[in-house]
Amino acid sequence: MRVTVLVGGVGGARFLQGVRSLLTESDEITAIVNVGDDVWMHGLRICPDLDTCMYTLGGGIDPERGWGHVGETWNAKEELAAYGAKPDWFGLGDRDIATHLIRSQMLRTGYPLSAVTEALCNRWQPGVRLIPVTDDRSETHVVITDPTDDEQRAIHFQEWWVRYRAQVPTHSFAHVGADKATPAPGVLEALENADAVLLAPSNPVVSVGAILAVPGIRGALRTGRAKVVGLSPVIDGKPLRGMADECLEVIGVQTSAEAIGRYYGSRSETGILDGWLVHETDTADVPGVAVESVPLLMTDPETTAEMARAALRLAGVSV
Amino acid sequence: MRVTVLVGGVGGARFLQGVRSLLTESDEITAIVNVGDDVWMHGLRICPDLDTCMYTLGGGIDPERGWGHVGETWNAKEELAAYGAKPDWFGLGDRDIATHLIRSQMLRTGYPLSAVTEALCNRWQPGVRLIPVTDDRSETHVVITDPTDDEQRAIHFQEWWVRYRAQVPTHSFAHVGADKATPAPGVLEALENADAVLLAPSNPVVSVGAILAVPGIRGALRTGRAKVVGLSPVIDGKPLRGMADECLEVIGVQTSAEAIGRYYGSRSETGILDGWLVHETDTADVPGVAVESVPLLMTDPETTAEMARAALRLAGVSV
Repeated sequence: MRVTVLVGGVGGARFLQGVRSLLTESDEITAIVNVGDDVWMHGLRICPDLDTCMYTLGGGIDPERGWGHVGETWNAKEELAAYGAKPDWFGLGDRDIATHLIRSQMLRTGYPLSAVTEALCNRWQPGVRLIPVTDDRSETHVVITDPTDDEQRAIHFQEWWVRYRAQVPTHSFAHVGADKATPAPGVLEALENADAVLLAPSNPVVSVGAILAVPGIRGALRTGRAKVVGLSPVIDGKPLRGMADECLEVIGVQTSAEAIGRYYGSRSETGILDGWLVHETDTADVPGVAVESVPLLMTDPETTAEMARAALRLAGVSV
Repeated sequence: MRVTVLVGGVGGARFLQGVRSLLTESDEITAIVNVGDDVWMHGLRICPDLDTCMYTLGGGIDPERGWGHVGETWNAKEELAAYGAKPDWFGLGDRDIATHLIRSQMLRTGYPLSAVTEALCNRWQPGVRLIPVTDDRSETHVVITDPTDDEQRAIHFQEWWVRYRAQVPTHSFAHVGADKATPAPGVLEALENADAVLLAPSNPVVSVGAILAVPGIRGALRTGRAKVVGLSPVIDGKPLRGMADECLEVIGVQTSAEAIGRYYGSRSETGILDGWLVHETDTADVPGVAVESVPLLMTDPETTAEMARAALRLAGVSV
């Protein structure tokens, strides 16, 4: 069986664990990973979502934080701050730097990000094929009113998310470079050849939304032979993690399972969904989309596997 | 008073401490630093001698090792090794990486190494002006017989020094790029305007020798108005630190204070020395050069300051 999942960082990585535990080695799981958060910092190319997926599935993630390495230290970051180097608000871990060094060096040598990711995964053996949605630049920037001078400007998503914790007047998102980006090798094939396509319960705006911003992805979802089933990242009107509510507010979508389902929309109209899974305490009416209510809390691997099983069943595939 | 010192790493840095403690704030100390050891590794530009001088004079050096940061950790290095990244034999510390990141990024942006060094020194305030001998590439490589296949090849000095500990059949040194290198801004001026020029008790082959390999340096030493006084790094036929004996053997010079003095040679002939300081238990006959015997062990700052005082006195300057 071939399952393709669109994912962001922490939530996406945990969901992939559930999918992986459900399937066997002969099944093929492909994760199409958001690169909108990717950023150059101190001369290093940092890919937060790819790394979170890689570390989580490879057994190296810090289980408390949900991102970064277990046993991480922050001495390089401390020294960079002592030099007065900016930005100083990003959690650049010493162990993490090794990944960034290898990636940056390979990128500078001319390898595309998808090839770099494959090389890094040789070590981590995630058991899931991780592909960046594109090898091109497609970075999420955020138009804010800068609190220091009251001027509008576009800042990188990471600055908005990590430095400001989304607590600045925010006007819109821009997917910088997306219009000229093309899907990375293997992405369209993974969507076309899948038996089921799942949208992880990741941020619908800056994770799944940033993936959909790459030309060709939405079309492949709409024309593929597999059913497309999404899982709501919002339960009882609250995001499970991250700041999906802040992001949804910016694009004028309510923070509810129903509103997000309608935002993705039905394949029978102009959207991308065949099925939509919401939490057992939620209901949602999404025209043209089969909605089911099941437990959606990824509290442990077993619960997460059951979520994945329900999503696959809704996609017409039984495991 | 203006004192200019040619230096390598650990020994040079300690000697500079002695010079600094001897002079006052109105005096001007310029260190012309070896860059032959500099190397790109994992996409980072590493300048061991510049950093050792900067950390030592700035109070950040590890006093046990004599190089690298106090309180250093090695997590990035461990992770790089887990990826199988080569080279894996270099002591790349987490705190150290911050320095390399800033340097590499500035170099890639187009700043010359001398400007980068000045920027890094803004933090460390070494109290000595540190200038790389050249902004150009002038790297020491070593022609060895590779033990794995018995073929001769040239390897970077760091590989010879750190990986092989000089324990391979070695044929010669090559200063790669030196023929096209020019002295960095301020280097020739510091030699021309000095009241005294000192050669630190650094490795005469791969530290001071690599500095002398940059075209223009030897000429400036020979024609400058200040006297040039060197300090022997060899006592009783043994190097104080490092592997000067291994290096001297390669170029066919005996490991003795006298032989090194003669290798530098007298300014009255084709050499660079006016004076040569050897350890109190040593004697040396160097034609055309004033030789003095004083204690040359840099056991503590006071002893080192006395060495510097003796060197300056021999250069005709009293402090």
